[in-house]
Amino acid sequence: MDAPVFERIAIIGIGLIGSSIARAAMATGAAGAVSICDASEAALKRAGELGLGDTFANPGEAVRDADVVFLCVPVGAMRAAAATVAPAMKPGSILTDVGSVKASVVRDLEPFATDRLHVIPGHPIAGTEKSGPDAGFSTLFEGRWCILTPLPDRNEAYAAATRKLAAFWERLGSRLEAMDAERHDLVLAITSHVPHLIAFNIVATAHDMETVTEGEVVKFSASGFRDFTRLASSDPTMWRDVFLNNREAVIEVLGRFTEDLIALQRAIRWGEGDTLFETFSHARGIRKAIIEAGQDTAAANFGRDGGKPV
Amino acid sequence: MDAPVFERIAIIGIGLIGSSIARAAMATGAAGAVSICDASEAALKRAGELGLGDTFANPGEAVRDADVVFLCVPVGAMRAAAATVAPAMKPGSILTDVGSVKASVVRDLEPFATDRLHVIPGHPIAGTEKSGPDAGFSTLFEGRWCILTPLPDRNEAYAAATRKLAAFWERLGSRLEAMDAERHDLVLAITSHVPHLIAFNIVATAHDMETVTEGEVVKFSASGFRDFTRLASSDPTMWRDVFLNNREAVIEVLGRFTEDLIALQRAIRWGEGDTLFETFSHARGIRKAIIEAGQDTAAANFGRDGGKPV
Repeated sequence: MDAPVFERIAIIGIGLIGSSIARAAMATGAAGAVSICDASEAALKRAGELGLGDTFANPGEAVRDADVVFLCVPVGAMRAAAATVAPAMKPGSILTDVGSVKASVVRDLEPFATDRLHVIPGHPIAGTEKSGPDAGFSTLFEGRWCILTPLPDRNEAYAAATRKLAAFWERLGSRLEAMDAERHDLVLAITSHVPHLIAFNIVATAHDMETVTEGEVVKFSASGFRDFTRLASSDPTMWRDVFLNNREAVIEVLGRFTEDLIALQRAIRWGEGDTLFETFSHARGIRKAIIEAGQDTAAANFGRDGGKPV
Repeated sequence: MDAPVFERIAIIGIGLIGSSIARAAMATGAAGAVSICDASEAALKRAGELGLGDTFANPGEAVRDADVVFLCVPVGAMRAAAATVAPAMKPGSILTDVGSVKASVVRDLEPFATDRLHVIPGHPIAGTEKSGPDAGFSTLFEGRWCILTPLPDRNEAYAAATRKLAAFWERLGSRLEAMDAERHDLVLAITSHVPHLIAFNIVATAHDMETVTEGEVVKFSASGFRDFTRLASSDPTMWRDVFLNNREAVIEVLGRFTEDLIALQRAIRWGEGDTLFETFSHARGIRKAIIEAGQDTAAANFGRDGGKPV
């Protein structure tokens, strides 16, 4: 195995992403050791039981010997987490994160960027609908993109630290991309944030329909609805923070979505079959491109139900 | 193997559902023989190559000896298909369908209900995003619900025919439910039709965003967007017909969905985190109920990416 990229990494927040980093870092040898801290006593205890690394109740102790600290907490908790760990971090070390919004994280972490601390925000585009230390797995980042949004106009030491962080993610199997924080937030609004909001919303709409029971929805969910419930079972706290912190881009994309949806509704009302057909035909091309890009499987129904064509 | 429920079945339209019925009928012994007809010469030829049954270019010949005829065509083509086959069907046989809308099918098929022909509309709640004779598989209906919407006030022979059709679907592994056609259309509007419309729509919105390229959408689609593209790659002709024929229920549910979505958008704009959190928390319960009801898998990410928790 190659030498570790970092001698020791620290993970603050040992949920799905944090515990996957811990597992992947050890499995690939990207880190020599892993320190873990979590505000939840139960999560920290569980991380210890799972053997994910050295656990610390005190965040300052968790980060003291680390070359890089990963903040794996909801976006709204980034500033407080950074304020707690930054003073205890060693000179020349890296403070990074995995948050799904980047402009607000840049704003919240930038004050901690000094000559002795490299602040390099990041976002691995990977995940499942599960939460907690048991949900992580070591291959989560394989073939997935990881976006770094480095702060502008820093020195050569910062550039070297950024390359090292990128090398770490590459060792975990990620493909790297550097991006401006504002652009990240717009792209993710369309590819992730608005899709999740829509999924949360349709589940709520179904729940509130007084003319159709929840039992009926559950029973016949295999006809499409269940696909939305997977996204909609993601962590509520994490997603609340995403929407509160990516307000403008989400509202912009939502506006476009609603406009388009109302146009489709109008086409249905007036029986404009050609408009519907053209819109629906469009979509197949994008699906094909996603499968070719290795970002999804072509197996029917995701291979759910063992549903493979014979 | 038990005796066949029907000596011979005929399938008009050998796509995903039609070819799955053919495969399942032979695999389970629910039918002694299968006759197949399709308006597409290529599909019919392929059905022959796949050994799905006896193929006929002439629909009249395909149905002549059948005890039951399954119309597996888009909802908008039901009336014409029925008009073609009904005169050639044998006395006492059953004319059924698999359309995703039922009130319009009842309206279109009822004129063919006579003393010599039992018209029993149906809808197996099963499918994948794939189309065509290669897409079907014999286990598609296992554990899935099949809804029959029998015509009201018929005689005892009709009731016996309905029981026999139900027995056929049960042999294929389906769970049976009888329902009023209008109620079916409302329940399916929320569990299937509107989810598909939303999926088609968000893909179209993403495609039309001039500020985000299609390449970026494809690249970062693993963050949620790709889940929608699966639904949105379903057959455009079939879905056009669904929306044109379930107009009222779809527009009613869409109205509720949009109302709820705009309320969420407002909560985002005004930073109402509690409203967001409560809506998001709701959704987890429904997901749990769906998994417990056996209508989805609990595997993270549908087991896509080999993403199983370790």
